[in-house]
Amino acid sequence: MSAPSTGPLVRVAFTELQALLQSILHRHGCSAEVAAVLAHNCASAQRDGAHSHGVFRIPGYVSTLASGWVDGKAVPQVSDVASGYVRVDARGGFAQPALAAARELLVQKARQAGIAVLAIHNSHHFAALWPDVEPFADEGLVALSVVNSMTCVVPHGARKPLFGTNPIAFAAPCAGHAPIVFDMATSAMAHGDVQIAARAGQRLPEGMGVDAQGQPSSDPQAILDGGALLPFGGHKGSALSMMVELLAAALTGGNFSWEFDWASHPGAKTPWTGQLIIVIDPSLAEGERFALRSRALVEQMLAAGLSRLPGERRYRERALAEREGVALTAQELAGLKALAG
Amino acid sequence: MSAPSTGPLVRVAFTELQALLQSILHRHGCSAEVAAVLAHNCASAQRDGAHSHGVFRIPGYVSTLASGWVDGKAVPQVSDVASGYVRVDARGGFAQPALAAARELLVQKARQAGIAVLAIHNSHHFAALWPDVEPFADEGLVALSVVNSMTCVVPHGARKPLFGTNPIAFAAPCAGHAPIVFDMATSAMAHGDVQIAARAGQRLPEGMGVDAQGQPSSDPQAILDGGALLPFGGHKGSALSMMVELLAAALTGGNFSWEFDWASHPGAKTPWTGQLIIVIDPSLAEGERFALRSRALVEQMLAAGLSRLPGERRYRERALAEREGVALTAQELAGLKALAG
Repeated sequence: MSAPSTGPLVRVAFTELQALLQSILHRHGCSAEVAAVLAHNCASAQRDGAHSHGVFRIPGYVSTLASGWVDGKAVPQVSDVASGYVRVDARGGFAQPALAAARELLVQKARQAGIAVLAIHNSHHFAALWPDVEPFADEGLVALSVVNSMTCVVPHGARKPLFGTNPIAFAAPCAGHAPIVFDMATSAMAHGDVQIAARAGQRLPEGMGVDAQGQPSSDPQAILDGGALLPFGGHKGSALSMMVELLAAALTGGNFSWEFDWASHPGAKTPWTGQLIIVIDPSLAEGERFALRSRALVEQMLAAGLSRLPGERRYRERALAEREGVALTAQELAGLKALAG
Repeated sequence: MSAPSTGPLVRVAFTELQALLQSILHRHGCSAEVAAVLAHNCASAQRDGAHSHGVFRIPGYVSTLASGWVDGKAVPQVSDVASGYVRVDARGGFAQPALAAARELLVQKARQAGIAVLAIHNSHHFAALWPDVEPFADEGLVALSVVNSMTCVVPHGARKPLFGTNPIAFAAPCAGHAPIVFDMATSAMAHGDVQIAARAGQRLPEGMGVDAQGQPSSDPQAILDGGALLPFGGHKGSALSMMVELLAAALTGGNFSWEFDWASHPGAKTPWTGQLIIVIDPSLAEGERFALRSRALVEQMLAAGLSRLPGERRYRERALAEREGVALTAQELAGLKALAG
């Protein structure tokens, strides 16, 4: 998620970038509410140096909205299924507004029952997954989320792509420290990073993907043009990707990564699938102790020689952006301003 | 989990093997209840060809019981924490009897709330993890479990071992088909398989572990003698292993993989940690549809060219064992009979 953009950098205030993105999304078909949620998400990714999910995504949002593939004005429908279960029909809109609509009820259930699940279906997820889980950890909760995407990963031992890049994100509070957060594609590489490498004309490390003939390839364009990615970690990553299909699609009632067809919507880029979020309140059984032991874990990891904890690069970029503004290239900024009209 | 035993094979009926293991465990310090649970677990692993967690483990159980490290007669204490949360203090005994004691309450909560969590602490887990999750899927539930173990894995980018092999197991029902089940160490290799390779004098593939000097090694004995394993899949597997420490230890109140010291208990082999199990009832929101879509996923995986689904080898071995008896070597059977006295 980290391939840097090229060209001279400019820095803009977070709120300014957010407002710019919001006006673009609103102008191109999102309701004010949806535009606000997506703009905050996308500006946060850019701020944190997660470039493959930052402003790089805006043209994809715009072309998708123009294609009629996603409903930028959808009003999510929240169902209170059981004391630990919330279901949301995103009604063909984005997943983030669906999460926003259900979030308060989800947190309330997790605090009462100790654990609760949010099952979103009929939703489009085109963003990083860590912004969905990190805020739970800020409130002292543990969160785990999975989302499936679009067929572009060959299951380990198979001949053809089937799974999506199917990320898993996790967040946990940590006493006196930013939350412990990770967000990993179960593919060997995130799809956005392949696109960034292709755009930059870079080669990929070995083992990331195959070309249209199923042969190993380190050419990102060959992977994008009829080729496919491989799972990370062989059969284990492949099994996790399968689990993501079961949890994010079969359990939520959303589409599997191969169940939608956007052929009649040229310009559509957003996978129309589902998302699952599990939230646990550690305080019910462990009080403040969970966050203290989470901190002890961090200290042990540093003592074992780790120089960088999961999520730490993002926090460092964030701190820099808060001081100096969010970095993007002058070309990117000009492109955004043109889209804002 | 699959390294075959060497030497001439004999086959014994499952119930006969189970009774033999039960009498060994009972004779060496387990209560009748604990011996029954562990014997069923261990005989099931042997039956399914999961040799690193089958009868291979019995000498370790016996030496651990003899060392006074584990309480084979512990009576687990179950706490009803909240409408979706069960906690068990295994009281220094094994994790499987703790799960057995809490299982009915856990299932009842999952069926009512849609999701429930079981947090076990003060427990010893020395077995495969799939036997803990597969029975939930037999009842139509989705189950995810993690257990931490003992320091033997170097976090990605670190210099010293810290994490355990920290497996993740998952089970989901599948219409007209055995449940979809996987059980994976987050280390590049399971510890039991390293022991089996060392015993057999085999070399390991590259990338599994390091020797006592931290240098890459394919000698299983060097990994066992002061060396360590690596995580699977680089930084991603390492992040998952960290997550297992947080969920299985920090969240449950159990020990981290580095927090116990068995030096004063020679012969002790069982990690004294914690275990977390999350159970979801898919029927509340999706009715029968989850298992049907799980089946559709299996069919798509086969159509993509997969020759073997996760868990399938175990089911094949199980079917053979049900027809012809459970396979073990004549030497293993003689060893077991000697332990039974």
